[in-house]
Amino acid sequence: MSSGNLASVLHGIEDLRLEQRPLLEPDPHEVSVAIRSVGICGSDVHYYRHGRIGDFIVTAPLILGHESSGVIRAVGREVRSLTVGQRVTIEPGVPCSRCIQCRRGQYNLCPDVRFLATPPIDGALTQYVDASFAHPLPDTLSFDSGALIEPLSVGIWANRKAGTTVGSRVLITGAGPIGVLAAQVSRAAGAAYVAIVDVNPERLRQATSLGIDEAIDAKASPDLESLHADIAIECSGAETATATVISALRPGGRAVLVGMSASPQVKIPVAVMQARELTVTATFRYANTYPEAISLAASGQVKLEEMVGLRVPLEQAQQALTAGATHPEVLKAIVRVSED
Amino acid sequence: MSSGNLASVLHGIEDLRLEQRPLLEPDPHEVSVAIRSVGICGSDVHYYRHGRIGDFIVTAPLILGHESSGVIRAVGREVRSLTVGQRVTIEPGVPCSRCIQCRRGQYNLCPDVRFLATPPIDGALTQYVDASFAHPLPDTLSFDSGALIEPLSVGIWANRKAGTTVGSRVLITGAGPIGVLAAQVSRAAGAAYVAIVDVNPERLRQATSLGIDEAIDAKASPDLESLHADIAIECSGAETATATVISALRPGGRAVLVGMSASPQVKIPVAVMQARELTVTATFRYANTYPEAISLAASGQVKLEEMVGLRVPLEQAQQALTAGATHPEVLKAIVRVSED
Amino acid sequence: MSSGNLASVLHGIEDLRLEQRPLLEPDPHEVSVAIRSVGICGSDVHYYRHGRIGDFIVTAPLILGHESSGVIRAVGREVRSLTVGQRVTIEPGVPCSRCIQCRRGQYNLCPDVRFLATPPIDGALTQYVDASFAHPLPDTLSFDSGALIEPLSVGIWANRKAGTTVGSRVLITGAGPIGVLAAQVSRAAGAAYVAIVDVNPERLRQATSLGIDEAIDAKASPDLESLHADIAIECSGAETATATVISALRPGGRAVLVGMSASPQVKIPVAVMQARELTVTATFRYANTYPEAISLAASGQVKLEEMVGLRVPLEQAQQALTAGATHPEVLKAIVRVSED
Amino acid sequence: MSSGNLASVLHGIEDLRLEQRPLLEPDPHEVSVAIRSVGICGSDVHYYRHGRIGDFIVTAPLILGHESSGVIRAVGREVRSLTVGQRVTIEPGVPCSRCIQCRRGQYNLCPDVRFLATPPIDGALTQYVDASFAHPLPDTLSFDSGALIEPLSVGIWANRKAGTTVGSRVLITGAGPIGVLAAQVSRAAGAAYVAIVDVNPERLRQATSLGIDEAIDAKASPDLESLHADIAIECSGAETATATVISALRPGGRAVLVGMSASPQVKIPVAVMQARELTVTATFRYANTYPEAISLAASGQVKLEEMVGLRVPLEQAQQALTAGATHPEVLKAIVRVSED
Repeated sequence: MSSGNLASVLHGIEDLRLEQRPLLEPDPHEVSVAIRSVGICGSDVHYYRHGRIGDFIVTAPLILGHESSGVIRAVGREVRSLTVGQRVTIEPGVPCSRCIQCRRGQYNLCPDVRFLATPPIDGALTQYVDASFAHPLPDTLSFDSGALIEPLSVGIWANRKAGTTVGSRVLITGAGPIGVLAAQVSRAAGAAYVAIVDVNPERLRQATSLGIDEAIDAKASPDLESLHADIAIECSGAETATATVISALRPGGRAVLVGMSASPQVKIPVAVMQARELTVTATFRYANTYPEAISLAASGQVKLEEMVGLRVPLEQAQQALTAGATHPEVLKAIVRVSED
Repeated sequence: MSSGNLASVLHGIEDLRLEQRPLLEPDPHEVSVAIRSVGICGSDVHYYRHGRIGDFIVTAPLILGHESSGVIRAVGREVRSLTVGQRVTIEPGVPCSRCIQCRRGQYNLCPDVRFLATPPIDGALTQYVDASFAHPLPDTLSFDSGALIEPLSVGIWANRKAGTTVGSRVLITGAGPIGVLAAQVSRAAGAAYVAIVDVNPERLRQATSLGIDEAIDAKASPDLESLHADIAIECSGAETATATVISALRPGGRAVLVGMSASPQVKIPVAVMQARELTVTATFRYANTYPEAISLAASGQVKLEEMVGLRVPLEQAQQALTAGATHPEVLKAIVRVSED
Repeated sequence: MSSGNLASVLHGIEDLRLEQRPLLEPDPHEVSVAIRSVGICGSDVHYYRHGRIGDFIVTAPLILGHESSGVIRAVGREVRSLTVGQRVTIEPGVPCSRCIQCRRGQYNLCPDVRFLATPPIDGALTQYVDASFAHPLPDTLSFDSGALIEPLSVGIWANRKAGTTVGSRVLITGAGPIGVLAAQVSRAAGAAYVAIVDVNPERLRQATSLGIDEAIDAKASPDLESLHADIAIECSGAETATATVISALRPGGRAVLVGMSASPQVKIPVAVMQARELTVTATFRYANTYPEAISLAASGQVKLEEMVGLRVPLEQAQQALTAGATHPEVLKAIVRVSED
Repeated sequence: MSSGNLASVLHGIEDLRLEQRPLLEPDPHEVSVAIRSVGICGSDVHYYRHGRIGDFIVTAPLILGHESSGVIRAVGREVRSLTVGQRVTIEPGVPCSRCIQCRRGQYNLCPDVRFLATPPIDGALTQYVDASFAHPLPDTLSFDSGALIEPLSVGIWANRKAGTTVGSRVLITGAGPIGVLAAQVSRAAGAAYVAIVDVNPERLRQATSLGIDEAIDAKASPDLESLHADIAIECSGAETATATVISALRPGGRAVLVGMSASPQVKIPVAVMQARELTVTATFRYANTYPEAISLAASGQVKLEEMVGLRVPLEQAQQALTAGATHPEVLKAIVRVSED
C-alpha cells in the first residue's frame, strides 16, 4: 500500500487538478476508508461551475464529493465496532455532539457540523478519507449503491418529515435523483399512490421505469389540485413549485420542501393553508437515516443501481461533473476512485 | 316565558334591525339555550361593515354572533347529559359527523360544517338558540367569560398546533383578543417566556397587565430574529408578519398562522425554513378544545373578564359592533342579550 | 329480487338455523348491501361454541359475521357518495358520533358503538345488511378479499399504534390470521425485518409462503431477546407472550397488545421497561383504516386471497365455524352468502 | 484556593469517611465546579444502607450525590459558553455521544453513560467536581434550588412522556420528592386537575401546601377508577400501584412508570388496557430537560425551596443520608458542601 493519497482537487471554477495529498492516520474514534465509489451531487456540480453555494464559498483548494463508499484501511484506537477490510458507506456530516441540537438528536442542525465537500472541509474524491461515521455495507450491495445511500438518506428524511405511511397519496415535484429517490421511499413506506412531476420527458420515463405510479408532464398544465394529496415533497427548487404543491394537498395535508430555490423567498397560498390547516416544513440534509437507507437498498425496496447512468475513473472526474450538460439523460454519475 | 325570540338581524351593510323570530323546539339531539352573553368577534364586525368575508356573502338577513353563553330552556328528546336550567357555553360549529375529516377527529375541517353567524346559518344575537354542542359552565364562571370560551378555544388550538409546553419560548404577533388569549394559553402551558408584538401601545399595555412577559412595540424596529423562539403564533394578519415570525424561530422551531391576511398569498423566507428545518402550519377554528378552555378559565390560569371593555344590551348591539372604531381601547365587547 | 332475507341465525351454543328475516329499507344515511362474502373470525367461533365473549352474552338469537363484502341493493335518501350496484366492503362498527371519543377521532372507543355480530346487534351471515359505513371496492379485488379488509384493518391499526416505518425491525407473536396480516402490513410499511413466532408448524409455513422474513418455532426456545426489535405486536393471546415481546425490544422500543388473553391480568417485566424506556399499548378494533386497507390489498402489497383455505355457501356456514377444529391448516374460512 | 478536594466517601455499608482527594484540572470540554449544595436522593440512601442498587454494586470507595450546584472554578481549554465564577447546576449523566441512542437524542439510554454516584463514577459530595454538562443558574435561584433541578428533571421527563398539557386530568401515586415534583410540573403544564395519592399523611399535607389540587389517602380505599384520568404517573414503586394507575385511566389514557418496584415483574390489567386502548411507558432518568427545569424554577411555577426540610454541612452528610428514618417529615435533605 502506497503512502500517497491521490485526490481530485478543485482549485477554482472548472479547474480540477489531480494531486497527491498526505495519507494521515485516523483519530481515535475515526476510521480511514479506501474510497471506491463517489456519487456526484448537484452541489458538487454547483461548486465546480460557480465556486460557491450561497454563503459557502470555495476560497482554498477543495476536494469535492460527499456520496461515498469504500473499504476500511485502518481504524482509530478507540473504534470497537468496525474492522479493517470491512465494506462501508460514509455518512459525511460530523456534528459537535455537545450543542442543544446534537443532544436533541437533530444533529443535522448542529451549527458546528463538519460536512464533506462543504468549504473548508475536503470531500471524498480522493483515495483515502478519515470518517467518524462509517456504516457497514451488506455484501449484496455494490459500492456504487453504497455511495448512493447518502442521497437515499435525503429521500428517507423527507418522507419521515412528511409522515408517509401505509395508504398515503404522495405528490413529488422534480424527477432528479432526490425526487426519484424520495418517490421510491414513499412507495417502500406503503404509499397508495405516488405521482412525480417534471418538465423533462426523459426523467419522467426513468421515474416510470423505476416503478413510480404516475409521471406527470408539468408542461401539460396538469390539474394537480384535484390530486388531494396527503403529502407533497418539493424536490425541484422551482420557485412556483412550493405554491403548487401546497394547493395540491387535502385538508390536514403536509408539504416538505427539499429542493433549494434560487430565491431565498417564495410565495405561499396562506389562505389555502388556513382553510385546510396544512403544514409546510423543510429539510436540511438528514439525521439517523443510514441504517434505514441500507436496509431499503439491500432488500430491493429501493433501486439504486438502476439510477447510475455514467461511471468514470478518478482521473476523469470532470466528465462526471459535467454529465448534466453533456448527458442530460444521466440521473446519477459515479466516480470510481478505485476498482475492486 | 314568551313564545317570541327577539333577535338583532343584519339586513345589509350597517343595517341592523331588532326583530321577532319564531321560537322553535330543539331537534332530538339539541338543546334550546336562552342566551345571556355574546362576544363580538372581528368576523361579526367585518360582516356588519362589508357584508361579506371572502366567499361567505350575506345575501339574506343574518343574525350575527358566535361567541355565546346562556341557560338551557329545553332539551331534545335524545339528550341525556344536559338538563333544563343548566348554565352552558355553546360551541358554534356543528359538523356532519360522517366525512373523513369528522371521522378522523378533524371536525373543524368538515366541508359541511354549519357554523353560527356564517351565512346562511344564523348566530347568537337572539334570545334563544338551538345548540348541538353545549358545554356546562361552572358556577364560578360568569356568562361573559362563558361567551369568551370560544375565542379562548382559538388560542388553545393555536398552542396545541404549536406544541407549546413547559419551557417554550413563544413569540406572538398581534395583541388583539386572539393574540392576547393565545399568549395567556402559552403561559398556562408552562412557557418560559412569552413576547407579544403590536403597533398599538394601548394593546401592549393591556397585554402586560394580563401577565404577558414582554410586550414589544413593532414600530420600534425590534430585533425579533435574536429571540430564537421555539414557537411563533401569528395573530395579526399583517402581510409581512408571516416572514417576520418565521425568521424569529430557532432551528427546529414551529410557526402557526392564525391571523387572516388580506392577501391570499404571502412571502415566506424559504431558505431560512430549510437551513433551520422550520415548520409552518395554520389554524381554521378549532376542534376538541371546549373542556380544556373551560378548565383554564375556571382555574384562573387564563383571565377572561379582564378582557371585556364594553357591555351593552341586545338593543344596542350596534355599539358593540362599532366599538373598534369608537373605543379602540376595548379588547372585547359583549352584548348582554338578557341579564341574570 | 325476492323480498326475503335469508339468514344463518345462532339460537344457542352450536345451534345454527337458516331463517327468513324481513328485508327492511335502509335509513336515510345507510345503504342496503346484498352480501357476497363473509369471513369467519375467532370471535364468531367463540360465540358459536361458548355463547359469549366476556361480558358480551348471546341471550337472543344472533346473526354472526362482521367481515363482509357485497353489492349495494338500495341507498338511503341522504346518501350521496354511493350508488346501487356498487361493490363495497362494510365497516362493521357504527359509533354514536357525539361522544368525546367520536369527536376526537377515536370512534372505536365510543361506548355506544353498534358493531355487527356483537350482541344484541346482528351480523352479516344474511342476504342483506343495512350499513352506515360501506367503502367502495376496486374491481380488481374479489369479494372474498373485500371481506378480509376488516381483519386487515386490525393489522393496520396495530402497525399504526406501533409506528412501523421504513427500516423497522418487527417481532410478531401468533401466526393466526391477525398475526399474519399484521406481519404483511409491517412489510408493506417498509420494515427491514419481520419475524413471526408460533407453535404451529403449518402456520409458520404459511407465514413464510406469504413473504414474512422469518418464521420462528416457539417450541424451539428461540432467543428472542437478542432480536433487539424496534416493534413487537402480540397477536397470540398467550399469557406469557406479553412479557416475551417486551423483553425482545431495544431501548425505546414499542409493543402493541392485540391478542386477547384468557386472563384479564398478565405479568410484565417492569424493570426492563424502565431500563429501556419501553412503551406498551393495546388495540381495540380500529379507526380510520378502511381506505388504507383497500389500497394495500388492491396494490398487492398485502395478499388476502392466499389466506383463504375454505369457502362454503350460507347453508353450510357451520362448516366454516368449525373449520378450526376440522381443518387446522385453514388460516381463514369464507362463507359465500351468494355468488356473483 | 487550596489544592485539596475534601470529599465524603462511602467505604462500605453505613461507613462514610471524610477524605482529601486530589484536585485535578478539567478536561478540554469540562468545567471544574466548586460544589455548594447537594440534594440527597433515595438512590444515595440506598447505596448508603445496602451497598448496591440492583446490578450496580459499590465495590470500591464511592462518593455519593448526583443532585448538585456550585460555582465554576476553572474551565477546560475548549469551553466557550461558560466562565469562571458562573453559578451552575450540574447535569450528572455524560453519554458517549456516538451510539445510536445518543445520535437519536435519547442520550439517557446510552449504554456507556457515566453518571455521578453510580459505581464506579464518583458523585458530588466533594468540594470540586469536573462536569461536562453544567447549566447556568439564574441569580434568583438559590444553590439549594439549583441542586434540585436534577429531581425536577425527572418530573419534567415523566410529564413529557405522559404528554401532560392544558386541561389534562392527572393522577400521581407516591408523594415523595419525585411525585411532588411531577405533580408540580403537571400543574405548570396547564393540567386541569392533579391528584396525588400516598399512605403518609404528612406527605399528603405537604403536597397540599405545595398547591396540588387533591391529596388522597391511599389507606382510605379511594375510588380511583372513577377519576377517568387522562394521565397517570406512578412514583411510589409500590407493586400494586401499576395496576391501580392503569385502571384509573380514561379511554386512550397514558400511564408513566417512574417509581422503581422491588419486584422486576408486576401484574397489569391487560384486558382494561385493550378495552380502553391505554398506553403504558416508563422513564429512566431524563434527557434535554435542564433548560426547561431551570425556567420552571426561576419563574416560580415550581417551588423547590419549600421542599427542603433539612440542611447540613459536608461533615454531617450522614445526617442527610439517614433523615428518612430520623425525620420522616423531611421531603428533601440538602448537604451544604460549602457556603456562599
